[in-house]
Amino acid sequence: MLVVMRMEATASQVEAVVEAIEASGLKAHPIPGAQRTAIGITGNLGVVEPTRIESLPGVLEVLQVSHPYKLVSREFRAADTIVEVGGVAIGGPDLVLIAGPCSVESYERTLGIARRVKAAGARLLRGGAFKPRTSPYSFQGLGREGLEILARVRDEVGLPVVTEALDIDVIDEVAEHADMVQIGARNMQNYTLLKRAGRCGRPVLLKRGMYATLTELLLAAEYILDQGNGQVVLCERGIRTFADHSRNTLDVALIPAVERISHLPIIADPSHAAGRRDKVLPLSLAAVAAGADGLMIEVHDAPEAALSDGLQALLPERFEELVAEVRALAAVLGREVAAYARHA
Amino acid sequence: MLVVMRMEATASQVEAVVEAIEASGLKAHPIPGAQRTAIGITGNLGVVEPTRIESLPGVLEVLQVSHPYKLVSREFRAADTIVEVGGVAIGGPDLVLIAGPCSVESYERTLGIARRVKAAGARLLRGGAFKPRTSPYSFQGLGREGLEILARVRDEVGLPVVTEALDIDVIDEVAEHADMVQIGARNMQNYTLLKRAGRCGRPVLLKRGMYATLTELLLAAEYILDQGNGQVVLCERGIRTFADHSRNTLDVALIPAVERISHLPIIADPSHAAGRRDKVLPLSLAAVAAGADGLMIEVHDAPEAALSDGLQALLPERFEELVAEVRALAAVLGREVAAYARHA
Amino acid sequence: MLVVMRMEATASQVEAVVEAIEASGLKAHPIPGAQRTAIGITGNLGVVEPTRIESLPGVLEVLQVSHPYKLVSREFRAADTIVEVGGVAIGGPDLVLIAGPCSVESYERTLGIARRVKAAGARLLRGGAFKPRTSPYSFQGLGREGLEILARVRDEVGLPVVTEALDIDVIDEVAEHADMVQIGARNMQNYTLLKRAGRCGRPVLLKRGMYATLTELLLAAEYILDQGNGQVVLCERGIRTFADHSRNTLDVALIPAVERISHLPIIADPSHAAGRRDKVLPLSLAAVAAGADGLMIEVHDAPEAALSDGLQALLPERFEELVAEVRALAAVLGREVAAYARHA
Amino acid sequence: MLVVMRMEATASQVEAVVEAIEASGLKAHPIPGAQRTAIGITGNLGVVEPTRIESLPGVLEVLQVSHPYKLVSREFRAADTIVEVGGVAIGGPDLVLIAGPCSVESYERTLGIARRVKAAGARLLRGGAFKPRTSPYSFQGLGREGLEILARVRDEVGLPVVTEALDIDVIDEVAEHADMVQIGARNMQNYTLLKRAGRCGRPVLLKRGMYATLTELLLAAEYILDQGNGQVVLCERGIRTFADHSRNTLDVALIPAVERISHLPIIADPSHAAGRRDKVLPLSLAAVAAGADGLMIEVHDAPEAALSDGLQALLPERFEELVAEVRALAAVLGREVAAYARHA
Repeated sequence: MLVVMRMEATASQVEAVVEAIEASGLKAHPIPGAQRTAIGITGNLGVVEPTRIESLPGVLEVLQVSHPYKLVSREFRAADTIVEVGGVAIGGPDLVLIAGPCSVESYERTLGIARRVKAAGARLLRGGAFKPRTSPYSFQGLGREGLEILARVRDEVGLPVVTEALDIDVIDEVAEHADMVQIGARNMQNYTLLKRAGRCGRPVLLKRGMYATLTELLLAAEYILDQGNGQVVLCERGIRTFADHSRNTLDVALIPAVERISHLPIIADPSHAAGRRDKVLPLSLAAVAAGADGLMIEVHDAPEAALSDGLQALLPERFEELVAEVRALAAVLGREVAAYARHA
Repeated sequence: MLVVMRMEATASQVEAVVEAIEASGLKAHPIPGAQRTAIGITGNLGVVEPTRIESLPGVLEVLQVSHPYKLVSREFRAADTIVEVGGVAIGGPDLVLIAGPCSVESYERTLGIARRVKAAGARLLRGGAFKPRTSPYSFQGLGREGLEILARVRDEVGLPVVTEALDIDVIDEVAEHADMVQIGARNMQNYTLLKRAGRCGRPVLLKRGMYATLTELLLAAEYILDQGNGQVVLCERGIRTFADHSRNTLDVALIPAVERISHLPIIADPSHAAGRRDKVLPLSLAAVAAGADGLMIEVHDAPEAALSDGLQALLPERFEELVAEVRALAAVLGREVAAYARHA
Repeated sequence: MLVVMRMEATASQVEAVVEAIEASGLKAHPIPGAQRTAIGITGNLGVVEPTRIESLPGVLEVLQVSHPYKLVSREFRAADTIVEVGGVAIGGPDLVLIAGPCSVESYERTLGIARRVKAAGARLLRGGAFKPRTSPYSFQGLGREGLEILARVRDEVGLPVVTEALDIDVIDEVAEHADMVQIGARNMQNYTLLKRAGRCGRPVLLKRGMYATLTELLLAAEYILDQGNGQVVLCERGIRTFADHSRNTLDVALIPAVERISHLPIIADPSHAAGRRDKVLPLSLAAVAAGADGLMIEVHDAPEAALSDGLQALLPERFEELVAEVRALAAVLGREVAAYARHA
Repeated sequence: MLVVMRMEATASQVEAVVEAIEASGLKAHPIPGAQRTAIGITGNLGVVEPTRIESLPGVLEVLQVSHPYKLVSREFRAADTIVEVGGVAIGGPDLVLIAGPCSVESYERTLGIARRVKAAGARLLRGGAFKPRTSPYSFQGLGREGLEILARVRDEVGLPVVTEALDIDVIDEVAEHADMVQIGARNMQNYTLLKRAGRCGRPVLLKRGMYATLTELLLAAEYILDQGNGQVVLCERGIRTFADHSRNTLDVALIPAVERISHLPIIADPSHAAGRRDKVLPLSLAAVAAGADGLMIEVHDAPEAALSDGLQALLPERFEELVAEVRALAAVLGREVAAYARHA
């Protein structure tokens, strides 16, 4: 941290800042300049509130130098974390495709979609049982019944399941039925839920809030790791901007940025970013090319009848084509889209 | 495009719009309804300036989609909702000032601040017991102990209390101790919490998420009203933009926009938008001038020692000055900053 | 400036950075910490490209400490600049209202509007002769004829005139006919135009680009001052965000931020931010309450027939009401809305 | 709301949409046109999910407003436009790489870089002679001398040249010396310059403003086409958002969006979006995967000594690696990175 003093700050004001820093058990390093003095701070910066120092007379601003996350950073753990979900490794050389309907609508439909996406190359099944909906009048998901359908389909088809826990009242049930617990974009800073996810006993898929900076995303993951759960996969799903040609703006630069700073895997959700199916394929390829460890894609066999987000769901045959293109692209990047054996 | 005429539009006004449309080389398709007439437009819409038609007499608006909220809208309820919190009316002619520390730190400190802000003109006491913090390593609030301190201070000083419920595990306790339950910006789309707030038996202060559109804010309130709780106050606290001279961008235009569409009161939180105390006063005045029904201001008697957000807290004496300026401004706008009697 | 070294940086890498700094004629101040070394830089920072140092091995990042503008800053000139436009002082105690049509459409109409707004309290007349339009098929303004109309109306009515110079090919003519030259939001970083504005011999009204940070706005003004023209008024007119309830988001916090850092006056343009006339009044009051030195308001006597932006123009009678409210508000803030004598 | 059917929609598809609308309790008003049928919808539109109707067979889209551009749209010209720059075709099957320094600094340096990038696979040389700089105190480019250097290097090395025209005072000279005229992001709405670019006799590279919507970008191009110059290449270079991990947010979804609506080629500039060289490669691959027709990359042989933007420039050897990766990726997508013969 660096304290920048005002040009008119007096010597005794500088001294007072130095004393305040050292009273916190830190070391102060005054740097007198031609126009103003700056004061470097070293030591365990976690204990100091920068705003306190910024309140002292004569201080212009306090600049953060080191970042506030620890457990998620490569400085803490250099090697890539590999998250294992029902036997599927996310974050290793294989690209992992997660696919399925936006919402679980019925056993038969979910089963049919699961078989199609597995045959096409998906390794995990997605499907919402509890749905976060902007309007109270929209379909809210089948709830517990949806969880049971997912578990039955998993047992029948052999695809591990990821589904969202909307809040702490259902996370235990979600963790019981699913192989991976999803924290949605709207809940990325629901700290009570993050802490419980850190103790839920399942790997966690943490989606970036559509307003969240990289640091905020990493700190949200830090809440989970801090509770002892290191099995976290991050997910870029588009941020909110003024651009109106896609529902959200897929921020592909986040992918290499995460990979540089953190050891956690990162995947992309092109379906929610696109908002329309005709952009799902190009965004999928872009995310993989940028280094994503996997993709989460919405697939539905009758999108025009879907109870939510039908406009962005791919038909199973379009998903098959997407997998073929992703597979070819991955090969060029030295990765593989591993699939289950056909007879599985 | 669809032109929606006012209910009181005359037949000749409808005709004038039809003529204006056809004068542009387009085709007009009047659709008479039970309450009003709409006019579909076909042809090469590129040549028509929608704003011109919207300027014609009798035209209400030129529409794309209707809005998905109901209970919160003025179409559902024309009269202003007045929310009563421990005897204080929010949404009526009086401007209501809510003040207090960011976090409850101790009984003595909270008591001292409460006495100062009450004397200055505040009608409600704010103070966080459960704090949403970006980092797991920041001070998380005193929790239950904080709630009890707030209740004791309320009884001692006579200021009703508003404090945040971070999630459903604590909302009952918050509702038991506080006079008003706050839903924070990060939880604006925590639907489980919103539904519970709709059944908590207390008025609710709902803060706008820093990425939320007006429609999303109103739909979040709709979740609460839909559960039977009509006592909701909205709060503008700044949105996230690229601008870096304030922590968030206070969106004052939201205030008249809410007042036009919804019967719910709306206040502003200039402290969080500003991020620094030197901008709290101008943003407070701006929000009041734009029509806010009240302000929520952070006040601390030793900001440099505050456990959170010390940089934006006002000293009690600065808050007194702010109240004086707000009071003078309110008088010009035909409103009053009612205060408790000095001997209270 | 502060150079932050990576945790794994070697001693010789630190030394190389120190040498590079000193080779630029600056002073380097190494600050060894427990985990990493930082290096403070002092001296004339204008000469160093931070990116050069950031390219050296072992460097994590280079943090800016001091700001890159000079002439516009209060550190350079402490006293408020007062800009004089045809005898009207902007930036002093008086609030200055600028009003008129979006586009100059005809002599008669402009004359009529000018008389109405002058009688209501406006001190300057606005009106576009050259119009920046998103589409090549929209009305582009009357051009030179518009300038002549403005000059005739000024002579007839006695209101100094401000109008936009779209580019360097017309700025001399604009400067010849108008009392103040406007640089529009879309041209805020048209550096050729800014430099010419700095030599045009007229005061300049510089509108903030809808994507511009405070620093970029101040640097755009710096281009003008750097050419010897210190008569610059800044104008906040709304930034582009995701919010869709107003055309742009009026960033009222910019006003006190400018006043703290710069000696230049700042006014607001609520008409373009609002996009609809029903929000012009609340945004006007908000801007004045936040400390604006004036307002620029679009007024038209037949908005439904306006050739541009009719939806946001006020009728003259609404403008009169607005002036009355602004005047009352200004009085509370210790300012005055000075008007011309009625007989003028 | 207006449902627009596909031109090839059958009568029974139209009927199915009408039935779906009426099944929701709404009224459908079919409006048969010369080319296609549209269907107006009346009733309580709150109950209808527009996305559901948009999912029905035969439906093209559910519309609010039609778009204001013409010449740039695929409705005007269905076939891809191929822009030819000094014998190089942009917009055809070949991916075109444009590379070179941010600024032209000297003949020798430019010559050396040009030889390296040509050998690596670049087809065009970029290099700034006139530089738009945020600060008046930054290096502003060599100006005319820079243009002459570019022309000499072009003649020597045989790479066509693209360089920016900052304003109308220099566009003729730029057009005389260069093979393609660039309009920079800050000038995307400099309409005077756009019109002149439409008459400059050279192909134009039009960069998206960092605040511009897709519609605004297309309308800026429309200004150029409207003057008779159809040889326009669009360029995505990142938009301004709150995200701070890259300088701007590369909006890869713009690429397929442009390709769907417009016949003009679109390339990407990953260097400016990234702001740091370590993100140039992943963003390059992402843009190509999303369908870009080419890339513009900054390359410098001594980035730490560059006079501008050194932090984002690639060393020639890194550029060679990038070309190899892009070439492999392009092959998968059925495109080619054509290069000049080695002996050229």
